[in-house]
Amino acid sequence: MSLLAVGSVAFDDLETPGGSRQNLLGGSATYFSLSASHFVPTQLVAVVGADFLADHRAVFEKRPIDLAGLIQKPGRSFRWKGSYDDELNEAKTLDTQLNVFADFHPILPESFRQSAYLFLGNIEPSLQLDVVHQMAKPPRWVALDTMNYWIKGSRQELAEVLKEVDILLVNETEVRELTLEHNLLKAYRRVLSFGPKVLVIKRGEYGAVLMTEGCVFSVSAYPLEVIVDPTGAGDTFAGGFLGKLAQLGRMDIPALKHAVLTGTVMASFTVEQFGTGRLEKVQKKDLDDRSKAFFNMIRVDDL
Amino acid sequence: MSLLAVGSVAFDDLETPGGSRQNLLGGSATYFSLSASHFVPTQLVAVVGADFLADHRAVFEKRPIDLAGLIQKPGRSFRWKGSYDDELNEAKTLDTQLNVFADFHPILPESFRQSAYLFLGNIEPSLQLDVVHQMAKPPRWVALDTMNYWIKGSRQELAEVLKEVDILLVNETEVRELTLEHNLLKAYRRVLSFGPKVLVIKRGEYGAVLMTEGCVFSVSAYPLEVIVDPTGAGDTFAGGFLGKLAQLGRMDIPALKHAVLTGTVMASFTVEQFGTGRLEKVQKKDLDDRSKAFFNMIRVDDL
Repeated sequence: MSLLAVGSVAFDDLETPGGSRQNLLGGSATYFSLSASHFVPTQLVAVVGADFLADHRAVFEKRPIDLAGLIQKPGRSFRWKGSYDDELNEAKTLDTQLNVFADFHPILPESFRQSAYLFLGNIEPSLQLDVVHQMAKPPRWVALDTMNYWIKGSRQELAEVLKEVDILLVNETEVRELTLEHNLLKAYRRVLSFGPKVLVIKRGEYGAVLMTEGCVFSVSAYPLEVIVDPTGAGDTFAGGFLGKLAQLGRMDIPALKHAVLTGTVMASFTVEQFGTGRLEKVQKKDLDDRSKAFFNMIRVDDL
Repeated sequence: MSLLAVGSVAFDDLETPGGSRQNLLGGSATYFSLSASHFVPTQLVAVVGADFLADHRAVFEKRPIDLAGLIQKPGRSFRWKGSYDDELNEAKTLDTQLNVFADFHPILPESFRQSAYLFLGNIEPSLQLDVVHQMAKPPRWVALDTMNYWIKGSRQELAEVLKEVDILLVNETEVRELTLEHNLLKAYRRVLSFGPKVLVIKRGEYGAVLMTEGCVFSVSAYPLEVIVDPTGAGDTFAGGFLGKLAQLGRMDIPALKHAVLTGTVMASFTVEQFGTGRLEKVQKKDLDDRSKAFFNMIRVDDL
């Protein structure tokens, strides 16, 4: 059982209160697959340029990530430059260069079309729908991320692909913009009417909220004393959440709750160093130790 | 075992997206005592004016709230006028009239000086310290709330009273201003150096975080589809939290966690109607039902 992920592999220039870094391997599908592959074999569909070198490829190849869908083209990879304020709350985009990503039209390798689980990362909704149509059979579930740019500019196309989606993962402002509801319970009911059965709202330092029938489950971010770089935390969360869910092979409420905890723990590694620095080095023991600590934190014993 | 609470009883004029109300019974000690008294007999120390009528008194007298410390003076009660934006996130103060509260100098009735538990609501820090000194014996614990006005203007006096405090309850911006630390774990360590052993950070719709040795515990607000008026939610939380803690008579981590859940559930009633409208009517069954639902929400079963 594999998890197929479509999204961006990019290079980031980052400015944070603690320092700057250039040319870091980034992109939503990078963080997602590095995270998800701890739980389930992951298949990556993305496009990179000539600046994607053997060292970058090796980062993925160290993990159970199938790169048959990673296309390399002449030119430069998607590049993003962002800065964070003192509180590290919000990224300010300083520059975006789509480069080879501008013409990205994902074509699934034959070996990917049977995947049991499908994650449609944040790309143009019509391309997301096209990926769904390329699957040889309906996946056991389809999950989708999107952003305000598509919610504003491609609402109709987004509505089309949402009909095929089981799990919607977005942040708080995105779900409000998508549903035109401020209240998250009302927003959830609107999302249900679009197609998805499960809504996961990412809230940065306030963690995440899972909503599905008979369940509203919130967790805060894993508490850390030092946060270096929040880039990729949301994508790492998504990878941990969906990777765990695929590993469990179930979508009942206990499984969904455990998946939220797993995503939260994975994201806590990412923010500890710049880029994928810490995420690349996560070992099973790190994950087990922090998961155990997190379970203890949230557990409420009977009196 | 009683819980003694010192604070304000006031009248509020409120403007919300859903409507306006004038002359509502309010004030931190009102919400606090109506909430805490569900769990432990509560003693109230506050000052009101001639506008505090028999009907207002009856609101308290319906509950196990001892009003021996409620002093009535000529003139008008403390009055606050506030408005909320569409998202109900933050109250904007339109007018504050201290009236009889300006000269408030709490004097504890003899019968209150033996109280086992003491809550110092948000009043001038030197008055909070004076209340501590009026106790016949050290309470089993002392809890304190404060606000940015005192953190900025009376930092030295606040530092003095904090030495006597076991539990600090403040909101997120307040703890950051008090400790000059943005990171909440760092802020917690600073708070420890001031005196308190337990820090509870109120975060509005994002709920609350409890921090004490070996424990970081976060819960979101109880999810509601309709929120009418957030006034008093934080004070209701404090009353439920400290009332439950006093009722349990313990301060270990399981007790503190349960108290956070209780405070959260109590606050969820307050926001459902204007002022104390809903809080006044809470029955044991309401509390039990919602507490049970909340426990189910946050509980993570083994897989």
